[in-house]
Amino acid sequence: MIFYLLICAIKLIRLVSEVITKMEMKNRATYKRKKPGTSPGSLVYVGEQKIQNVKMYLFDFNRDLFEEKDIENVEEIFKYKKNGNITWINIDGVHDTTIIKKIGEYFDIHSLILEDILDTSHRPKIDDMEHYIYISLKMLTVDPITQKIGQEQVGIILGDDYILSFQESAEGDVFNPIRERLRTGKGRMRKLGADYFAYCLLDAVIDNYFLVVESIGERIESLDQEIIVNPSKTTLPKVHNLKNELIKLRKAVWPLRDIVSTLERSESPLFKESTEIYIKDLYDHSVQIIDTIETYRDLVSGLFDIYLSSVSNKTNDVMKVLTMMASIFIPLTFIVGVYGMNFKYFPELEWQYGYAMVWVLMIGVAGSLWIYFKKKGWT
Amino acid sequence: MIFYLLICAIKLIRLVSEVITKMEMKNRATYKRKKPGTSPGSLVYVGEQKIQNVKMYLFDFNRDLFEEKDIENVEEIFKYKKNGNITWINIDGVHDTTIIKKIGEYFDIHSLILEDILDTSHRPKIDDMEHYIYISLKMLTVDPITQKIGQEQVGIILGDDYILSFQESAEGDVFNPIRERLRTGKGRMRKLGADYFAYCLLDAVIDNYFLVVESIGERIESLDQEIIVNPSKTTLPKVHNLKNELIKLRKAVWPLRDIVSTLERSESPLFKESTEIYIKDLYDHSVQIIDTIETYRDLVSGLFDIYLSSVSNKTNDVMKVLTMMASIFIPLTFIVGVYGMNFKYFPELEWQYGYAMVWVLMIGVAGSLWIYFKKKGWT
Amino acid sequence: MIFYLLICAIKLIRLVSEVITKMEMKNRATYKRKKPGTSPGSLVYVGEQKIQNVKMYLFDFNRDLFEEKDIENVEEIFKYKKNGNITWINIDGVHDTTIIKKIGEYFDIHSLILEDILDTSHRPKIDDMEHYIYISLKMLTVDPITQKIGQEQVGIILGDDYILSFQESAEGDVFNPIRERLRTGKGRMRKLGADYFAYCLLDAVIDNYFLVVESIGERIESLDQEIIVNPSKTTLPKVHNLKNELIKLRKAVWPLRDIVSTLERSESPLFKESTEIYIKDLYDHSVQIIDTIETYRDLVSGLFDIYLSSVSNKTNDVMKVLTMMASIFIPLTFIVGVYGMNFKYFPELEWQYGYAMVWVLMIGVAGSLWIYFKKKGWT
Amino acid sequence: MIFYLLICAIKLIRLVSEVITKMEMKNRATYKRKKPGTSPGSLVYVGEQKIQNVKMYLFDFNRDLFEEKDIENVEEIFKYKKNGNITWINIDGVHDTTIIKKIGEYFDIHSLILEDILDTSHRPKIDDMEHYIYISLKMLTVDPITQKIGQEQVGIILGDDYILSFQESAEGDVFNPIRERLRTGKGRMRKLGADYFAYCLLDAVIDNYFLVVESIGERIESLDQEIIVNPSKTTLPKVHNLKNELIKLRKAVWPLRDIVSTLERSESPLFKESTEIYIKDLYDHSVQIIDTIETYRDLVSGLFDIYLSSVSNKTNDVMKVLTMMASIFIPLTFIVGVYGMNFKYFPELEWQYGYAMVWVLMIGVAGSLWIYFKKKGWT
Amino acid sequence: MIFYLLICAIKLIRLVSEVITKMEMKNRATYKRKKPGTSPGSLVYVGEQKIQNVKMYLFDFNRDLFEEKDIENVEEIFKYKKNGNITWINIDGVHDTTIIKKIGEYFDIHSLILEDILDTSHRPKIDDMEHYIYISLKMLTVDPITQKIGQEQVGIILGDDYILSFQESAEGDVFNPIRERLRTGKGRMRKLGADYFAYCLLDAVIDNYFLVVESIGERIESLDQEIIVNPSKTTLPKVHNLKNELIKLRKAVWPLRDIVSTLERSESPLFKESTEIYIKDLYDHSVQIIDTIETYRDLVSGLFDIYLSSVSNKTNDVMKVLTMMASIFIPLTFIVGVYGMNFKYFPELEWQYGYAMVWVLMIGVAGSLWIYFKKKGWT
Repeated sequence: MIFYLLICAIKLIRLVSEVITKMEMKNRATYKRKKPGTSPGSLVYVGEQKIQNVKMYLFDFNRDLFEEKDIENVEEIFKYKKNGNITWINIDGVHDTTIIKKIGEYFDIHSLILEDILDTSHRPKIDDMEHYIYISLKMLTVDPITQKIGQEQVGIILGDDYILSFQESAEGDVFNPIRERLRTGKGRMRKLGADYFAYCLLDAVIDNYFLVVESIGERIESLDQEIIVNPSKTTLPKVHNLKNELIKLRKAVWPLRDIVSTLERSESPLFKESTEIYIKDLYDHSVQIIDTIETYRDLVSGLFDIYLSSVSNKTNDVMKVLTMMASIFIPLTFIVGVYGMNFKYFPELEWQYGYAMVWVLMIGVAGSLWIYFKKKGWT
Repeated sequence: MIFYLLICAIKLIRLVSEVITKMEMKNRATYKRKKPGTSPGSLVYVGEQKIQNVKMYLFDFNRDLFEEKDIENVEEIFKYKKNGNITWINIDGVHDTTIIKKIGEYFDIHSLILEDILDTSHRPKIDDMEHYIYISLKMLTVDPITQKIGQEQVGIILGDDYILSFQESAEGDVFNPIRERLRTGKGRMRKLGADYFAYCLLDAVIDNYFLVVESIGERIESLDQEIIVNPSKTTLPKVHNLKNELIKLRKAVWPLRDIVSTLERSESPLFKESTEIYIKDLYDHSVQIIDTIETYRDLVSGLFDIYLSSVSNKTNDVMKVLTMMASIFIPLTFIVGVYGMNFKYFPELEWQYGYAMVWVLMIGVAGSLWIYFKKKGWT
Repeated sequence: MIFYLLICAIKLIRLVSEVITKMEMKNRATYKRKKPGTSPGSLVYVGEQKIQNVKMYLFDFNRDLFEEKDIENVEEIFKYKKNGNITWINIDGVHDTTIIKKIGEYFDIHSLILEDILDTSHRPKIDDMEHYIYISLKMLTVDPITQKIGQEQVGIILGDDYILSFQESAEGDVFNPIRERLRTGKGRMRKLGADYFAYCLLDAVIDNYFLVVESIGERIESLDQEIIVNPSKTTLPKVHNLKNELIKLRKAVWPLRDIVSTLERSESPLFKESTEIYIKDLYDHSVQIIDTIETYRDLVSGLFDIYLSSVSNKTNDVMKVLTMMASIFIPLTFIVGVYGMNFKYFPELEWQYGYAMVWVLMIGVAGSLWIYFKKKGWT
Repeated sequence: MIFYLLICAIKLIRLVSEVITKMEMKNRATYKRKKPGTSPGSLVYVGEQKIQNVKMYLFDFNRDLFEEKDIENVEEIFKYKKNGNITWINIDGVHDTTIIKKIGEYFDIHSLILEDILDTSHRPKIDDMEHYIYISLKMLTVDPITQKIGQEQVGIILGDDYILSFQESAEGDVFNPIRERLRTGKGRMRKLGADYFAYCLLDAVIDNYFLVVESIGERIESLDQEIIVNPSKTTLPKVHNLKNELIKLRKAVWPLRDIVSTLERSESPLFKESTEIYIKDLYDHSVQIIDTIETYRDLVSGLFDIYLSSVSNKTNDVMKVLTMMASIFIPLTFIVGVYGMNFKYFPELEWQYGYAMVWVLMIGVAGSLWIYFKKKGWT
Repeated sequence: MIFYLLICAIKLIRLVSEVITKMEMKNRATYKRKKPGTSPGSLVYVGEQKIQNVKMYLFDFNRDLFEEKDIENVEEIFKYKKNGNITWINIDGVHDTTIIKKIGEYFDIHSLILEDILDTSHRPKIDDMEHYIYISLKMLTVDPITQKIGQEQVGIILGDDYILSFQESAEGDVFNPIRERLRTGKGRMRKLGADYFAYCLLDAVIDNYFLVVESIGERIESLDQEIIVNPSKTTLPKVHNLKNELIKLRKAVWPLRDIVSTLERSESPLFKESTEIYIKDLYDHSVQIIDTIETYRDLVSGLFDIYLSSVSNKTNDVMKVLTMMASIFIPLTFIVGVYGMNFKYFPELEWQYGYAMVWVLMIGVAGSLWIYFKKKGWT
């Protein structure tokens, strides 16, 4: 009983969530875009605003020291400059161009890079700007109820002693375990340099992909079961959605390989040689993710084929029933029609066993048709 | 009420616009082509003439000065040669070969390049001719009413202190914001050299692609909704048109990557090193456009599949109704036919409860068939 | 009226032309092939013989002189050797191996090259043999009546001061405009060297491709209209033929890119540096042709899909009509059947308004079924 | 009789095996995964635990000596270090992280490599770590009853005088023949170095692929027969499963080529030049396996197409029977219906030969319809 | 008459040949395979044994001398070693491992190469072993009756003054013309070295491919005709078989390009520079074969599509007939049913012109339905 209520509750939540999604889609009118022809490097936010206020956190640490701080005002971060420690500044929400501009000026970031940070629809990319490296990725989230996959841009700037990370919102933050590890001082993170720390951020984002990919794998398996056992009207839209989500996912993840591979081959002094093996590990993970997505696309495309052919099969079954019913009864109806005629001179009608003979005839006809269909393997 | 009138008006405009389009298609007999075997580099206009008269504008500027002028006569531009400023000459309409020839002679442009400028059906390309670079692109426009995508060739020649740009017509000109920026003197445009200005022109063209791609994205989404919810006869041609438009779009945009990449790797002295980062940004944009078009092709191909299978599903539904109706009533009709026979010796007809019994029999047959179909899940 | 006669005439010609084509297909028994295991470089003609007699023309020219001559006997050409002028020898018909052999010996052409010239089924190729370059291409022709695309091999040998060109037949010769230009002395042709002249021949062949491709484009557009508006039984074979023609066309044109690109990168002293820009232009044209063919393949494949789904749609429509008719009248027929039974005790038959009641019943049944189908959107 | 019992027995076993498989699938809840954001190189087992206890075997050998030992305690292996012999340690079961950690420390294996050994879902890979090489592969098994293909990760570490091999379980071990060859001292295995021994292990794994691929080949052939001769409802899921298994197989085998090719080009001092030819042989085998899998994918995709079209064909056949029956008898039933009408003034009914005439009419109608269908080729 | 008997004879032979093929398939149980884990380089025959006894022929020749000999005993060939002439030893049948082993030892062939010679399922490959080169190819045969394509492995070893060739059987030997040319001393074969002779063997094998490919081309053309004009039940399996044969053919031929290209780029002293041009010719042929096979795959895939859509078309036609018949007669049957009712108070039945009126009504209904279907274009 309680179990049943639970299911109802889940269904309700799902419904509400879908309604909200639809409303959000309508609200996309608030999606901002850049006017073509604006000066290159002009700072305009592209995308929908996901949180109200920008939140900034600063972590300043070395092997021994550790400081964590919420930043209200951009100027607060200026005093951490060149203090010998590694400084990580995390900005949740990139819709406030003035903040981005101030940070950009302070850290001497090229305006084209700032433009890319603000453009949340941008393809994942890497830019080696000599005194810093800019990497942008998509962070993926799976809605636990509707199973929809969300995308959010993460921009990471690696300098010699600072790391900046920009996110669209604070939700589903994959950097939390990293914060924990910083606080407890576990692992190599506080001992090794800024490049290792940047690797940790990338690794956290990519590790998260495995969860997303796994959730898709489970959906494929359950759809596969559904199609083989009991395909219904709702199956097809589900397969279609999955297919589209995989297409979009692929677009978000595909550039990853190039990015990590560029990082691996990069000769930037910002990346120490000791970090190289970690980057190679990251590369292996990227390739595995992409491989899995390609495999899933093949599987989903197979789902579609099998759905189509199960519909064909069903039509064929329906046709067989119709054909058997019609083919058996139509001749019989004709026979009884014959003896329903009102001719004056109609010898059979006068016979005593006429009626019985007609039944014999009809059973004979029906029987031989039945045997015919049986032999054709239609029963 | 006013709203309704508005819709009518839009429909009317759309209709008129389609009629015009059709008439234009008929007029394509005026499409000019080159005879095979003509001497290479002979100047022949290829394509349909889009405007009546050629219009020319000249912009002469440096960091401090700015002059804008409408050119009536080609000779007027000669005095701006080598005056130390950057000169941008924009020609709308390339069907007048004499003008093109004069400009070509004046700026010492190779006849093969002039031939390419005149061939509006040419694939986008880049030619590094040492003392100038020729780049041709397609400018895309979306008809706001029919949503059709139009293509127009833009040729850009970058010399050391001049930029020539050739367009087929003056409509939907993406260079207007650039003119504005020139006039107001905002941005780096008037400070940096001719190469940066050429980049700005390219950037304006490519930025415009995003609008086109976005409009396609919206059409895909609305078609997706339409197919899932309520597919009709007009849905299929819409999907088909979208597919074809994407195929043609892809052909127009695909060479872009090579062009920008050639520009990026180019060692021409015409491109200063400081402009390189902007070219890289252009490259990223090109790749993103191409990526998105490929993704859209996958999505549209999925639309097609789902349309096909929704038709299959519908046929199946129609079949089920037919089969149920026929399978239930055909045996009943047979039964009543039996008792319509006119045999003399027909015992059942004499029975008092014969008629009632027949109804019982018929209800039994119909009921069991109904249950059978119910169990098959056909209702 | 005259117009109508014209159409009849065209139809007749088309019919005759098809009959001829079929007869030609039967005659393909005369298609010659090489026996496997024959010595490499042995001269055997491969293909069908397209003209009766071999025709040879010689053009001997430099900046000032010009001589044109029909050659009857191969030996006539020997005296033009090394006379300082450029000599172009055009051979129409390559089925006479003795002629080819003599020319081969005279110009010192490797026997493998001669073998390739004789093998008209060979893939387009380029061979740089140091003191000469051999290029083979397919020349395409469109039958103006049946719209069929014909292929013919063109072999071109470029030496330091001679050009040999071999064609299968004299029909549809794309070299005629070149002969004209030679005679009139217009253009650069007589001023520049043998390499530029070879380029002109290649350019003439490739320029001709654009006509072929354009004719296909028109067929695709007209088929597209036909399928959307009124698909018939003959539509499918047309699409199928077009598809197959594109597959074969692609096979003939695809190697072009490699050939021209090899030519472009070639360091052979036979190609002067000044000719390089023309070769690049040729390369651009090749790429555009291949691009267009690929685009057309996509479009034709889309035609096929839409044809298939229009057939599905039609089946669905036919089904709906059948289902409505059957579903409405089968129950009615049952009802009238009931009152056609001959039971003795049959109360309804005695009622005065029985007949009228039955009509009311039947109109009710038919009406409610009609409303049901209306609601399903089937009318 | 005995034969029949045998078949029953096999079916029973198959059933039981399937039930077990399903239960195992439910048990996948015990599948372990790594939390995103954990420190890189932290040792967590990923996958399902396949055996209860870890089993370790040690083989210590050179040209003359040979020792085989079951290891209970990891410390036992330490004394074999640097004794001049080649030491092979085989670990069955990698779920016990403490054992892996100890071995890792003892042999100085990087923690990222240990992480990869523990992650049984990892893509096959190779890592050249200078003083050792890590290779991971998938070992494939075919269930002899259900024909399902199982995957198991095999990790191999090659040091200068030791080889470590890690397997998920001890089942279906392909290394048994190698153990035999070690014991009998046959072949080059004991004479050549550790690199040749590592090659032998790889060769054993890859040789086993041929068995798996052959079993799939047989399934394809039998399905091909089944579809052509007698396709049934169970055919489609079989094709679907085969397709999915091939997709997964491909994912497991595809990286092989890169791995072996990296090995071939590797300049690691761990691989002697004399072993190179064996690696090349391995590469040839990998390519052959991948080739065969691709070929099989094409074949299976062909199976699907032919199944679909055989269903279409069947529907068409069923339709023809229905159409013929209905088209012949419906007009006849109409005719007899006409003469069943009860009009008072009904001349035909009074005619003496009326009844006979009706039969003539009906036979005529049925006959001409039959001839019509015969001519259409429907019988 | 004789002609008819001939056809019968051919059909009989075909039947017998198919029966034999099936029996052979059953006999495949005699197909030998290698056990996984056997020592690399151990000599085991893989494949089915195609002839009873191994046959060996020796040809010893130079520019002036020529000796031909049947070898009974392997030792006989030893005295031809290093006699300054070129020695060609052809072995038909490779199932006798002892012979292969002896030859291997005598010519100092690596055991891995011998293993490959014995493995007839191996992918075509090339191995440059410094003092000899091993090339394996597939020799293709077309059964003149069933048109099936057979594959047989040919292994060729080229040493400095000897050539070994290994075939599975003596049937359909493509080397016969080469033997003839050797005997008559025609061509360059006896003058040029062992490398040219090896080229001749390869050329003979590849030339033979053209015959096979041409036979497939003819089958495609005849199937194309069959599908367009009169598709039947046997058409589909034919297309399916052709498709599968092409898939397998492609697998056999695809590696050819790499092999010949490796040969072309090879810097082995075994290949003289003068032979290079012949190898290039071989490369062109390989590419042409592969190109043609790809083209054929596209054509066959088109055949499949058109078959499918012709089935759809047929179903649609059948449906139309059914729908027209049913839609016209079902209402008529209803009408006559109405006047077959036995109501006491039935005014129409009493009317004098009732019967005539009903006919008028029925003709009206049938006529208007007919016009309706006519307008829909269904007749």
